[in-house]
Amino acid sequence: MPAQAQPTRENPRRELLNVAIDCFAKYGYAATSIDRIAKAAGVTKGALYYHFKDKEELLLESVKHRLGQFERRVVQEIATIADPAESIRTLGRICHEHATKSNHRRLIVTLMVEALDTYPALERVFRDMMGRFRAFVANLIEQGKKRGRFRSDVDSQLAAGMFAGAVMGLEIQYYQDPASFDLRRALEESCEQFLAWLARRARGARWKQRRR
Amino acid sequence: MPAQAQPTRENPRRELLNVAIDCFAKYGYAATSIDRIAKAAGVTKGALYYHFKDKEELLLESVKHRLGQFERRVVQEIATIADPAESIRTLGRICHEHATKSNHRRLIVTLMVEALDTYPALERVFRDMMGRFRAFVANLIEQGKKRGRFRSDVDSQLAAGMFAGAVMGLEIQYYQDPASFDLRRALEESCEQFLAWLARRARGARWKQRRR
Repeated sequence: MPAQAQPTRENPRRELLNVAIDCFAKYGYAATSIDRIAKAAGVTKGALYYHFKDKEELLLESVKHRLGQFERRVVQEIATIADPAESIRTLGRICHEHATKSNHRRLIVTLMVEALDTYPALERVFRDMMGRFRAFVANLIEQGKKRGRFRSDVDSQLAAGMFAGAVMGLEIQYYQDPASFDLRRALEESCEQFLAWLARRARGARWKQRRR
Repeated sequence: MPAQAQPTRENPRRELLNVAIDCFAKYGYAATSIDRIAKAAGVTKGALYYHFKDKEELLLESVKHRLGQFERRVVQEIATIADPAESIRTLGRICHEHATKSNHRRLIVTLMVEALDTYPALERVFRDMMGRFRAFVANLIEQGKKRGRFRSDVDSQLAAGMFAGAVMGLEIQYYQDPASFDLRRALEESCEQFLAWLARRARGARWKQRRR
């Protein structure tokens, strides 16, 4: 886990968000009080309330901040890669790194599922984020199609959902059993499976035709 | 959603579990009181406490009961299929049906993620269930390998995790946005992608060798 950042004069709000997400990831939402975050940040509760209305807003804003960091990292790293297949592999690698290097990503994924029925504002943040993630992957696939690297008959948006689903589903299995689920190998193989499917020729067989 | 079953003399405990999972799925764990379940089941609170210690035990037991129903359904339906590829497609179809025909499966998936950090007994139930699901899929893959239908160099356990991950990750995207995420098509294509990957020849390319 990253060291807890101390707020500085430069951007106190941002630093508070970093400390807050760290506390939420470490102790869970329920066990993280405003007081705990203020202490961890080395500021008074008053200073925290100057920036944020309540704990809920702090959670919402710190999640948005963390998602923004992830998205900027992805965009920056992939902007330098010319080959769409290599871009997809790099995306898999970045997801692996985020899932294993700190517990922030685990917090994000669990919150995303918890928010489904309980927290509409947060649910919207996650739905939008997943939409952006799929659009980003769909755009990589479109690039590959234009260059003749990927099948032209593939639905880029659907394929992007399949990629996003594979990453999320593997991560959850890893969080459930980190000692025995090999996330790196599973993500690596999933990327190769996905790229082989994008590259292969279209086949007509679908569920309907194959019913017993 | 299935109609709320009324407890009968035949198996009152099982009927109570069916009513309970229905209430938890409809109202959420927090908003479901023992009283609410007793009323929905048409029994007294005393009758409920005769079978279950508290709400937590009722949740745990009703989840186990629901998982058992799913597993028996899968085993029964797939036992009649000779072709491992067709078995995997059928598994995809059953998962689609469970995800869309009632809200029980949505409850199961959200609880599975929520339990990660908050409810060790339930976490264990889900970890064991995922282990059984992977073992079941791995066994189908082993059958396909023995018959020369699938690649012999594939790690069946890893591949089973990839299949389970794809299903779970697609389901979560569907629960997040049921109106616009086409779960059926996504699951169908994921099955075909998975089967094409199992059938294709091994390739040596992996992350390490392809680093820029």
